[in-house]
Amino acid sequence: MSRLVLKFGGTSVANIDRIRNSARHVKREVDAGHEVAVIVSAMSGKTNELVAWCAEASPLHDAREYDAIVASGELVTAGLMAIVLQEMGVQARSWQGWQIPILTSDAHGAARIQSIDGGEIVRRFSERQEVAVIAGFQGLHGDSGRITTLGRGGSDTSAVAVAAAIGADRCDIYTDVNGVYTTDPRVVPKARRLDRVTFEEMLEMASLGAKVLQVRSVEVAMNHNVKVFVRSSFDDPAQPKPGTLICAEEDIMEQQVVTGIAFAKDEAQITLRRIADKPGVAAAIFMPLAEAGINVDMIIQVVSDDTTTTDMTFTVPGADFERAKALLAERREEIGYTVLQGTDDVVKVSAIGIGMRSHAGVAARAFRALSEKGINIRAITTSEIKFSVLIDSAYTELAVRTLHTLYGLDKP
Amino acid sequence: MSRLVLKFGGTSVANIDRIRNSARHVKREVDAGHEVAVIVSAMSGKTNELVAWCAEASPLHDAREYDAIVASGELVTAGLMAIVLQEMGVQARSWQGWQIPILTSDAHGAARIQSIDGGEIVRRFSERQEVAVIAGFQGLHGDSGRITTLGRGGSDTSAVAVAAAIGADRCDIYTDVNGVYTTDPRVVPKARRLDRVTFEEMLEMASLGAKVLQVRSVEVAMNHNVKVFVRSSFDDPAQPKPGTLICAEEDIMEQQVVTGIAFAKDEAQITLRRIADKPGVAAAIFMPLAEAGINVDMIIQVVSDDTTTTDMTFTVPGADFERAKALLAERREEIGYTVLQGTDDVVKVSAIGIGMRSHAGVAARAFRALSEKGINIRAITTSEIKFSVLIDSAYTELAVRTLHTLYGLDKP
Repeated sequence: MSRLVLKFGGTSVANIDRIRNSARHVKREVDAGHEVAVIVSAMSGKTNELVAWCAEASPLHDAREYDAIVASGELVTAGLMAIVLQEMGVQARSWQGWQIPILTSDAHGAARIQSIDGGEIVRRFSERQEVAVIAGFQGLHGDSGRITTLGRGGSDTSAVAVAAAIGADRCDIYTDVNGVYTTDPRVVPKARRLDRVTFEEMLEMASLGAKVLQVRSVEVAMNHNVKVFVRSSFDDPAQPKPGTLICAEEDIMEQQVVTGIAFAKDEAQITLRRIADKPGVAAAIFMPLAEAGINVDMIIQVVSDDTTTTDMTFTVPGADFERAKALLAERREEIGYTVLQGTDDVVKVSAIGIGMRSHAGVAARAFRALSEKGINIRAITTSEIKFSVLIDSAYTELAVRTLHTLYGLDKP
Repeated sequence: MSRLVLKFGGTSVANIDRIRNSARHVKREVDAGHEVAVIVSAMSGKTNELVAWCAEASPLHDAREYDAIVASGELVTAGLMAIVLQEMGVQARSWQGWQIPILTSDAHGAARIQSIDGGEIVRRFSERQEVAVIAGFQGLHGDSGRITTLGRGGSDTSAVAVAAAIGADRCDIYTDVNGVYTTDPRVVPKARRLDRVTFEEMLEMASLGAKVLQVRSVEVAMNHNVKVFVRSSFDDPAQPKPGTLICAEEDIMEQQVVTGIAFAKDEAQITLRRIADKPGVAAAIFMPLAEAGINVDMIIQVVSDDTTTTDMTFTVPGADFERAKALLAERREEIGYTVLQGTDDVVKVSAIGIGMRSHAGVAARAFRALSEKGINIRAITTSEIKFSVLIDSAYTELAVRTLHTLYGLDKP
């Protein structure tokens, strides 16, 4: 007997038929003798509807009211899942975030889970064989007694945190794809499902553009060593198919050098030309951006051709592009640049693999392969287990396919 | 300065524009220096959607899960109303039923309010001039910690109970009509809005078919002597129009003999012919119906033409008609009747007026007037302040208009 957490995302609970199919996955695990907690998202589309109403009510709305409103979608699915399970003969009850409680910080809209009291849920596993169906995405700020939400995709984090709190053997994330792939199969038809991937790699993949899991859920899983299994709810529940296990490095026997290729199109590049090369200039550029909440990613500084000035190139999220340019334009004299150039017609392509730690020259091979295809690299960043290149977005597919083949990911 | 409760029903919060218009009514009262608590229903249609999902999930669903699901609609409106008020510069926050808490019995789906802790709401009136926006229709069962609902139309009861708990001077029920009418204006174009009506009369009117208020809300208002004002949210908030005040008898200077004419079409009549006229026969008929939860209203027993048997006529709700007939058919030998006759093509027309107490012959005048129009009366019931007649439904409009004129309600 194992203790399991099963999480179902919006498309897996989009209507009563989909909820029923997802419930059959739950019933299969219960029938196998496991103790099961279920985390549900809102029906797909419902959260967007609620968010749109908040925006229509006021562009600058109270984040506490926003949370109370948008958290309601998951309450509906939790109750419906409990009803459907009961009809299948499975003992079940729904739990709202505040009923458990799932206590969080007061950062409304992006709250962090602080503690989860899993005592009653575990007691009911043994005393009543009862499945706990828990509304995802939400919690309670203890001091104020008000509802909080964890940010978009937060139900993944709810699931992993509940799994940690009740000491679950595994957290199954049921979604509309059957696992984590070497890259997006819509770009590279030869993309393969990975059997296993380390927490560290998954964290980089999620940060760098793979949308299968919320980044924070992977952090929580890594910190509490919760095995996460990504799988499809659209399978026949009677014949479950393999997915992707996200686990610690030591649980993976043989490690590829590169595990996956990710890409993110929501980047923009800004270049400030001929800045006086003096101390404090970087602060003059980046402090105002940081204060405006604009996240700067890649930074490259090169000496200009006249050798007394310097050029500064960096990237910001595409959504912040116009705001960043306006901020820098205001501070032109203070920073002392000649020309501001920018484009959001760029993409960041990344290769991730924990094997890079022990293999030299992994990134260098990529630079050569991309250059042979005529792809100009605008910026590069590297870390211990990944490297990223910024290129013109027209070359996205070519670059992703080139790297996918280069690192042997096409082979079964 | 007064302390007011304002309640807005589903059509008054059907979308953001409607919420905004309702919020202007709130702002007007706040600007006038009043302390205001607001009770909101779900956006119109939302509760029906949630109820339909529950039915689709399982025809026999857990009432506790049903409550957790259907109570979510009011959470959305409470948050949106708070946001809209804030944008208008009115200090406001939303309250979910469990946050106050509004404690109820555990009769899920039809729970009764047991206590409301209004302390924090009142404290915030004086300390922050903050409007409390409260989700209607719902509460918390204290022992189980689970969400309860008060039954359809329950937000009216929430509003009156909150008004009692915080000692409000008045409870304004904003709806899509501008008050309580002498009868349905769609049937009698000359129907007039009543300025004032007693709790007792309103209770009878609501019980007998007038749909403007939930019956239980009137009971609570009467028990706690909460003045209830029924008015329209569709008016221009800058120029509020008069509505109908529901209040104690002593607050009404001049009382009509008859205040209103109500009618209910959802009745069915059953007649059992030639029953042996012996002790225990009434029990044999009505006990099985009571045990099946079927509510019997009017009962008439007449001796048959052969004088050794009796005929028994009674009414049941139209929705229970088929079930009642089937139950009685099963027990034919036991009861010992010859023929079972029934029709749901009947209507119950009632005249209500607290003045009937002190005026004799009020009902007799009606019987004569109806008979002069050729309307056959199938059954009659009377109480201290109302009488009802059961007639063929084809005569509904004629009977209502006849009584409306007879008791002088046509006159301005």
